[in-house]
Amino acid sequence: MPLTFDLQHNDPQTSARAGVIHTDHGDIHTPIFMPVGTVGSVKGVQLRDLNDDINAEIILGNTYHLYLRPGTATLEAAGGLHKFNGFDRPMLTDSGGFQVFSLTGIRKLREEGCEFRSHIDGSKHFFSPERVMDIERSIGADIMMAFDECPPGTAPYDYARKSLQLTHNWLDRCINRFNETQPRYGYHQSLFPIVQGCTYRDLRIESAEFVASKNAEGNAIGGLAVGEPTDVMYEMIELVNGILPKDRPRYLMGVGTPANILEAISLGVDMFDCVMPTRNGRNAMLFTSEGTLNMRNSKWANDFSPIDPYGTSYVDQTYTRAYLHHLYKSQELLALQIGSIHNLAFYLWLVRQARAHIIAGDFRTWKEQMVPVLSRRL
Amino acid sequence: MPLTFDLQHNDPQTSARAGVIHTDHGDIHTPIFMPVGTVGSVKGVQLRDLNDDINAEIILGNTYHLYLRPGTATLEAAGGLHKFNGFDRPMLTDSGGFQVFSLTGIRKLREEGCEFRSHIDGSKHFFSPERVMDIERSIGADIMMAFDECPPGTAPYDYARKSLQLTHNWLDRCINRFNETQPRYGYHQSLFPIVQGCTYRDLRIESAEFVASKNAEGNAIGGLAVGEPTDVMYEMIELVNGILPKDRPRYLMGVGTPANILEAISLGVDMFDCVMPTRNGRNAMLFTSEGTLNMRNSKWANDFSPIDPYGTSYVDQTYTRAYLHHLYKSQELLALQIGSIHNLAFYLWLVRQARAHIIAGDFRTWKEQMVPVLSRRL
Repeated sequence: MPLTFDLQHNDPQTSARAGVIHTDHGDIHTPIFMPVGTVGSVKGVQLRDLNDDINAEIILGNTYHLYLRPGTATLEAAGGLHKFNGFDRPMLTDSGGFQVFSLTGIRKLREEGCEFRSHIDGSKHFFSPERVMDIERSIGADIMMAFDECPPGTAPYDYARKSLQLTHNWLDRCINRFNETQPRYGYHQSLFPIVQGCTYRDLRIESAEFVASKNAEGNAIGGLAVGEPTDVMYEMIELVNGILPKDRPRYLMGVGTPANILEAISLGVDMFDCVMPTRNGRNAMLFTSEGTLNMRNSKWANDFSPIDPYGTSYVDQTYTRAYLHHLYKSQELLALQIGSIHNLAFYLWLVRQARAHIIAGDFRTWKEQMVPVLSRRL
Repeated sequence: MPLTFDLQHNDPQTSARAGVIHTDHGDIHTPIFMPVGTVGSVKGVQLRDLNDDINAEIILGNTYHLYLRPGTATLEAAGGLHKFNGFDRPMLTDSGGFQVFSLTGIRKLREEGCEFRSHIDGSKHFFSPERVMDIERSIGADIMMAFDECPPGTAPYDYARKSLQLTHNWLDRCINRFNETQPRYGYHQSLFPIVQGCTYRDLRIESAEFVASKNAEGNAIGGLAVGEPTDVMYEMIELVNGILPKDRPRYLMGVGTPANILEAISLGVDMFDCVMPTRNGRNAMLFTSEGTLNMRNSKWANDFSPIDPYGTSYVDQTYTRAYLHHLYKSQELLALQIGSIHNLAFYLWLVRQARAHIIAGDFRTWKEQMVPVLSRRL
């Protein structure tokens, strides 16, 4: 069945919306945060914790990483990524563009596509829009992202304009290949195009209009949170969301802090992903409903209170700040696991709260109370 | 309440026994394997997995590590290790001797005790029998081990004889201090003495007799599995167990492979600990009921069968060999977690099976079938 989006509530005071995305692997309640499962595993998190404790409704896989390891032959033999990693809820794959274009010095970009060397063994590979569509078909995520060029955040106008043209050419080639091919595993796959254009208003408008004209089942905003000031990011989101169709989900790629997410929800974004909860979790930086904690700080050494008094996850109900501090100081694996689960559960709690407040009609008031609290350093 | 041991079944064909150790934190069904929780955390394992999936009945903490981090002040502030790490079943602490005597070059041994430098920050510390008893009181494990010298496995006879005298002198000092002090947290603590003597029969006999004369609530055999041939280890265990009281639990320290454990059970050992299941699990070496697997081997890349078809743990029912292989190859944290949980659950399954076969009366037959299977490389 095609991916569909029921827009259930529009916040009267902001552009925030609450909806449900229907996929062949189940429903996704928006706004939603998608934990990143780079190689098909959300780092440090057992599948049942992801399902039952974090309550992830959709996770993200990285095409670049999955293509290199385990490779499409293994993924096809398994019957797709869902069967391979055992996660039977919706999944989304990025296109590998972001990773490939981060491989500065070991990649060559041309109109046809991009040649690059594996970060693992230096072997040569070539990604074109067609190749990436084929790989994403092999992976079998419910939502496939178009292959785009991700220019650096600091790209000058001329570079950004040429890059955008390439991204748009590639989008047409992605759509053609996508339409010529079928899902491999018996369930529907969607293709989401990506709006680029750096921080140039005219390019963002042009890109949003081009993307909107494709009438895709959902649309994404890429190339933000790459170093530009936060208010510029918000300005770009607002501009693009004014153009993207209202009746399709909007996915803001790679963003961000809890405060970023609430602001972007208020600007009409429905879907988010970011490595921050897991990466920061591994690095002892925890997000809580009262602010952020650096768990390595010795002030927690004898604090026998829960990690987050309002924490919803198993780890919040099980471990104390003192114990977790000790685990980080002792470089115990368990610290990374606890931090990752806590942070992901917090992110999922936050978007559920946002959704509840949108439905209740007091989203703006709640958001304005929350943003300064979330950014506080405890 | 004092620690007591109900000896329930004696295998008629071997010296294997099945029993129950009663402690203030609950019962331990023997023979039992104790997962090692070095700094108060079993590496890579969440508390609920330890409780409900691995079914650990008792875990071990390392006095040396806990003394350095988090330190006795924090442990006392928490109300003891049980409250600190949240594990409310029985725990045992070693005496730190093994770790301190491994710090060759940064420790000085004399009759009074042993001065050493922390492996963390180089700070100077002094462990004496009295000091170690005080630390183990602060930690608050149900079973405290006596402070002993652990000579190298290759120690010549003269060194071994002197070392044993020191260990015996220290045992008397441990017992005195133990008897002069009270548990800090309202439940009983036991002190287990340790038989040493390297691989010298006369020293092992002398030590076993000396230890037996102390009438402790349980007794331990130390200084084995440190490089000697396996049959010499078994010879020493048999010799010592012929002398140690039959009505008290016997703990073989730091042993070993699944086959070692079954052989030692047949020689009358009741309790085991070893880092092997967790260390090997982190290193992609899995123990199964059909033999050992090196999960990095590319032969598993497309094997979509369970890790262990007879595996009892959640991870066996959730993940395939192909997926776990991929996680190890990709150096994912989750691989270490899955490997550790699987191996620990396997060790606990193995001792439960041993116990069931002792009770059923067919332990020897079962053990003789199992030992070659367990040692097979798949």
